[in-house]
Amino acid sequence: MEAQLQTVYPNMVQWRRYLHQHPELSFQEKETSSWIAQRLEELGCEVKTGIGGGYGLIATIRGDKPGPVIALRTDMDALPIQDEKTTAYASRVPGVMHACGHDAHTSTMLAIAGFYAENKALVAGERRLFFQPAEEVCPGGALGMIAGGALDGVDAIYGVHLWTPLPYGTAATRPGPFMAAPDEIYIDIKGKGGHGGLPHETVDAVVVASAIVQAIQSIVSRNVNPLDPAVVSIGSIHAGSTANVIAEKCRMTGTVRSFTEEVRAFIKDRLKTIVMQTAAMYGATAELEYREGYPPVMNDAAETARFFKIAPAEFGIEGAMESTLIMAGEDFSYYLRKVPGCFMFVGAGNEECGAVYPHHHPRFDLDERAMLKAAKLMIAMAEDYAADATAASHS
Amino acid sequence: MEAQLQTVYPNMVQWRRYLHQHPELSFQEKETSSWIAQRLEELGCEVKTGIGGGYGLIATIRGDKPGPVIALRTDMDALPIQDEKTTAYASRVPGVMHACGHDAHTSTMLAIAGFYAENKALVAGERRLFFQPAEEVCPGGALGMIAGGALDGVDAIYGVHLWTPLPYGTAATRPGPFMAAPDEIYIDIKGKGGHGGLPHETVDAVVVASAIVQAIQSIVSRNVNPLDPAVVSIGSIHAGSTANVIAEKCRMTGTVRSFTEEVRAFIKDRLKTIVMQTAAMYGATAELEYREGYPPVMNDAAETARFFKIAPAEFGIEGAMESTLIMAGEDFSYYLRKVPGCFMFVGAGNEECGAVYPHHHPRFDLDERAMLKAAKLMIAMAEDYAADATAASHS
Amino acid sequence: MEAQLQTVYPNMVQWRRYLHQHPELSFQEKETSSWIAQRLEELGCEVKTGIGGGYGLIATIRGDKPGPVIALRTDMDALPIQDEKTTAYASRVPGVMHACGHDAHTSTMLAIAGFYAENKALVAGERRLFFQPAEEVCPGGALGMIAGGALDGVDAIYGVHLWTPLPYGTAATRPGPFMAAPDEIYIDIKGKGGHGGLPHETVDAVVVASAIVQAIQSIVSRNVNPLDPAVVSIGSIHAGSTANVIAEKCRMTGTVRSFTEEVRAFIKDRLKTIVMQTAAMYGATAELEYREGYPPVMNDAAETARFFKIAPAEFGIEGAMESTLIMAGEDFSYYLRKVPGCFMFVGAGNEECGAVYPHHHPRFDLDERAMLKAAKLMIAMAEDYAADATAASHS
Amino acid sequence: MEAQLQTVYPNMVQWRRYLHQHPELSFQEKETSSWIAQRLEELGCEVKTGIGGGYGLIATIRGDKPGPVIALRTDMDALPIQDEKTTAYASRVPGVMHACGHDAHTSTMLAIAGFYAENKALVAGERRLFFQPAEEVCPGGALGMIAGGALDGVDAIYGVHLWTPLPYGTAATRPGPFMAAPDEIYIDIKGKGGHGGLPHETVDAVVVASAIVQAIQSIVSRNVNPLDPAVVSIGSIHAGSTANVIAEKCRMTGTVRSFTEEVRAFIKDRLKTIVMQTAAMYGATAELEYREGYPPVMNDAAETARFFKIAPAEFGIEGAMESTLIMAGEDFSYYLRKVPGCFMFVGAGNEECGAVYPHHHPRFDLDERAMLKAAKLMIAMAEDYAADATAASHS
Repeated sequence: MEAQLQTVYPNMVQWRRYLHQHPELSFQEKETSSWIAQRLEELGCEVKTGIGGGYGLIATIRGDKPGPVIALRTDMDALPIQDEKTTAYASRVPGVMHACGHDAHTSTMLAIAGFYAENKALVAGERRLFFQPAEEVCPGGALGMIAGGALDGVDAIYGVHLWTPLPYGTAATRPGPFMAAPDEIYIDIKGKGGHGGLPHETVDAVVVASAIVQAIQSIVSRNVNPLDPAVVSIGSIHAGSTANVIAEKCRMTGTVRSFTEEVRAFIKDRLKTIVMQTAAMYGATAELEYREGYPPVMNDAAETARFFKIAPAEFGIEGAMESTLIMAGEDFSYYLRKVPGCFMFVGAGNEECGAVYPHHHPRFDLDERAMLKAAKLMIAMAEDYAADATAASHS
Repeated sequence: MEAQLQTVYPNMVQWRRYLHQHPELSFQEKETSSWIAQRLEELGCEVKTGIGGGYGLIATIRGDKPGPVIALRTDMDALPIQDEKTTAYASRVPGVMHACGHDAHTSTMLAIAGFYAENKALVAGERRLFFQPAEEVCPGGALGMIAGGALDGVDAIYGVHLWTPLPYGTAATRPGPFMAAPDEIYIDIKGKGGHGGLPHETVDAVVVASAIVQAIQSIVSRNVNPLDPAVVSIGSIHAGSTANVIAEKCRMTGTVRSFTEEVRAFIKDRLKTIVMQTAAMYGATAELEYREGYPPVMNDAAETARFFKIAPAEFGIEGAMESTLIMAGEDFSYYLRKVPGCFMFVGAGNEECGAVYPHHHPRFDLDERAMLKAAKLMIAMAEDYAADATAASHS
Repeated sequence: MEAQLQTVYPNMVQWRRYLHQHPELSFQEKETSSWIAQRLEELGCEVKTGIGGGYGLIATIRGDKPGPVIALRTDMDALPIQDEKTTAYASRVPGVMHACGHDAHTSTMLAIAGFYAENKALVAGERRLFFQPAEEVCPGGALGMIAGGALDGVDAIYGVHLWTPLPYGTAATRPGPFMAAPDEIYIDIKGKGGHGGLPHETVDAVVVASAIVQAIQSIVSRNVNPLDPAVVSIGSIHAGSTANVIAEKCRMTGTVRSFTEEVRAFIKDRLKTIVMQTAAMYGATAELEYREGYPPVMNDAAETARFFKIAPAEFGIEGAMESTLIMAGEDFSYYLRKVPGCFMFVGAGNEECGAVYPHHHPRFDLDERAMLKAAKLMIAMAEDYAADATAASHS
Repeated sequence: MEAQLQTVYPNMVQWRRYLHQHPELSFQEKETSSWIAQRLEELGCEVKTGIGGGYGLIATIRGDKPGPVIALRTDMDALPIQDEKTTAYASRVPGVMHACGHDAHTSTMLAIAGFYAENKALVAGERRLFFQPAEEVCPGGALGMIAGGALDGVDAIYGVHLWTPLPYGTAATRPGPFMAAPDEIYIDIKGKGGHGGLPHETVDAVVVASAIVQAIQSIVSRNVNPLDPAVVSIGSIHAGSTANVIAEKCRMTGTVRSFTEEVRAFIKDRLKTIVMQTAAMYGATAELEYREGYPPVMNDAAETARFFKIAPAEFGIEGAMESTLIMAGEDFSYYLRKVPGCFMFVGAGNEECGAVYPHHHPRFDLDERAMLKAAKLMIAMAEDYAADATAASHS
């Protein structure tokens, strides 16, 4: 595997840089999708496009030997960010940029496709490669893939995110909750406007809103188990336009982060109670819209144990790390609700190649060698699973 | 006086309606000013224009007998409001309207000018009639009048506001504090923005702002003497634009109403302490801009006693009322800082003629007969003062 | 009157000092009551004791001429305060003290009783002198007096409080609302106690209470008309006993001051809403006990005008003042609900005789000459009323 | 080991029950200490008493073979709780009770002492058994033991807490942070007292305190990394005594729980800022006393790995668990600051024998067989360490 992949590495870099120059936004990955289809055909893979009615593709490699069906997944969408890099491969599309590394994920998956196409004879069972659109924007592309039957018959699924906060040469994940459910809240308060000097004739929406913001703090400080990480943030607040007029309405938006469905439901319930009761207390009315984002990423215990068994060979004992919980979300979580699997980070940060910016930054870049690491890791996970399955079927 | 003014009443209505159709905004009363100058000349008054470099005018009537210099004042500016009345005399200027009655004030003062011009022989001393621009917009036109020497040598000053919350046939004022100092506040909080899921890396400007709004309530509820009416209102609050990003900055605007310079200074000081200390407590910084509006209207005790002596003759015992404190402001206060005097309300509300809307309302109108009442009241106040002064000089 | 009262002045001082040495608490004025009865008999008055089943007395003087029934009222109870004065007439009862001047009020009324007894022939109608117990403690002695028929047939009532914040030689009152309704509130919050490190298993009563205290500030700052003076104060708060145990319960007590029944009812309603909704918002329960104290003292307009007509003769134009609103309460308000009248302050402060401490202070004392002023004022009010009534009946 | 310990089990039960009937409070374990000394002598151990000037003891077993110095630790103090059990071995000391299981810990350590005394020939190096007083009360007995030289030359240390929330037959611990730093806070606010109706003459300590309680919530909700569990609880609040008097002072006490020194120091700093600035904002002054409790228990990574290697043999794969973080504290943390080691829980809950109450409960009891499990676990940990050390010295 090592040598074969190493040979393809120059292609991986070329692919990634091409995609980097031609980014497409979530749910609009038309050209990307058809470009991927062409590459997969060149690589000799069986390709299915238009999965779930969208731009998703599945490359299938059916091995010559019996064995499990193992899915590997990449995403492919870019972000509405203006690329500020000065490299030759910077985005050519104004205001759109691969600022999260999905170009490199795609390139990695193409290399994996090529590898499996070449080694079909050795493959036990089926390897199903997901090229998923729209990871960045709720409701996400994973639901469409699943609706399109992508998971049918799948025994296990793995996915990787290249991660610049971790240095090149490392990898990390954790069992159970790994990445947050990133929900959004929209609060509308309706009081009664009026003359700034006559507060008694009004219901002051600004006072109601500030009381809600204060009370919301108690959800995390008092109500949620301190051992369950959770965040409730009000990101914006807007009320009134004039200094001497009391505002009738106030709109607040915010985000909730949690790592279990229980905590998520509990916070939603507390928010509703606080918003409604506070408004009522002041004689105002309120509405709370709670928009659920992706579910929390819950890694399967056994498949995560597999990471800790497999990864040290490639990343060293020190380099195969238990990750902290991550406050960002991932729609990979939808797959994990259906099928055991593990989502993993592969370190891609490196000062020497300017890979020092966080994801979603206008100067985001990554150490491209991490693609090779990611390809190896996913293949190793899949083949270890297959080996275990084969061993089990023989015993 | 009675009969003479009654004769002029049709002119007063005509003048008022002309002005009502041709409103001009504060500090832009060019046509209004020159129209007034023409009227005054027709009436045979000595007129001085361009007072203090603005659109203010002074009509002076020097009596044949010795006596005091007494000033009477009207304002003349309109508001940026679209007239929604359907009367023939509705505003012809889109988006500009005499929604506060300054047209009627001006007409009243023209009638007074005519009266004094005709009765010059009987006048003891001087009557100085102020046609002041820009009462509606801070810093107001009164300062310009004063800078232009309007108050030089003045012994007393009177002013009237026609007032639709009071029914036609009544008048009201009160000794000492009468109308509020309407100040404005502008608060800018600067925290540190960041990812909505990573509050510990930020200083959340929304939380700081809401703590300030809560703490501000204690100024009126705890710090100001409960017998000193005061209001602190936050009229607008704006921070952030995205649900999942913690806001770096928050801007709030508001108004403060008070009736004495002591309370005003005290609230200003408390606000500064609360804003600065709360910001510091959360690791943010803040700026408070406190824009002083007009000073509180402080009626002279003796001149207000004069109202309660004089007014019952015209308005009856029940109709000459002690007013409550009024939360709105008036730049007549600047004159009262220099010269003893009294600012008075003359009732102009009347369901029968549609005068049922509050001042600054798009359908605002008034009972025009109140102009006659106002003219009589101001002349009566002036002549009573003059009589007292003459009596005093003889004794 | 002047001379007669002056003659009695030494007795007044002696009586007052005797009472000062023998103070009795509210509803326990047994000896005081019987001492008063003796004095009244010596003065030749008709006395009725045990009014309303308590220690109240009424001395009645029926004049030889027809005329109105006019009531004058004193109170007689002392306070649970240790007298710290070093004067010879300091209290001889440990922990009990006439620290509000009711001893002097009683002495004043005895002098009035003597005056009327001597001048019966000149009196038109009836003068009814109330010696009321228990002004200091709710529900107060006035209700018992009324229940005992004290007001039956009464045309007008007057009362005086000697007042050390005003200097000797002055007097003050005001029409309409004069003294506050001093209500008390008792708030009990019940959450769920638990381990200080496990807040999510509790409902933290301290957090609920602090949110209530914060929200209560908005009643005065936002809900009550800024022109209606009002106060809501939480005087005590008690919850928990241990640093590392979250408190199950919190008890708060406080006071509400208002000057009209409308504002009073409104605040009561707002308090109930805030307490109940805040508790519910946090998952706690709460109880609010609202104990109404005395009603606001509402002086009759005409009877207060009488004060301003009468008082200058005794106190001078400057000395007969319009009082501010007073935050303390008085059960004289119960009489004023039934009968027109006026409650008045007579200045009793004087540095030269150590009368510099506020009422209820352990070193409280007063300028005893104020008793003479008070006697004259009450008699003058009564006789002016009688004169008016007689004049009216003749016309 | 198995058989030998099993033989001693009846003694363990007897010892534990004797201690249970004769509990002594922290720093007062005089009889307990001398009773332990007697037992150790009977068991043939070398005993040193009065360690660090207190009631601590150390039993030392020096093996015949060279090897490491390994410390094992028990605690021995009881709690000021009235035993409500009805068992024959219930506490005979009114108001004092072994409600945390330190009696069973001591008995376990005696069994270990006997085991090592009998097997001295096989022991490689030294086994040092700590009988530590005063675990329940800050500053704890561990500091005295360390000051007395207990850790001199020690290579590793292990300790066990029997734990009724875990069922008999299980054991648990976790690498790194395991148990909290349980600090205490004492906040004193000084405002200015006064009349409940005159808030403007006061600085209301209740309002200041409630603002502090509200602001404190933001420490956990906004300032601490959501991935770092932390708690700040205000356990008690006391201010004022009268409904109608505004309180001058308010005292609050509370607890802080954290798991790293960084978070601990950060919270302490935030608390200081919030308390001081809030007080200053309202014109009050404040004092914050921050009493540090025990440090967080930080298990050594390698020694915790040893637990997961060793424990399954005794407790099964499922029974040897990774514990959650625990909000309680332990002064075992002081040893772990100096020497690598591991603190472990051994499950002692069992419905069948009434061991269903939490620690510190008046009916607390435990499954006594857990003592045997604990003894085996500690010996196994020690001997595995010794075996590794011997192996290392040979290689």
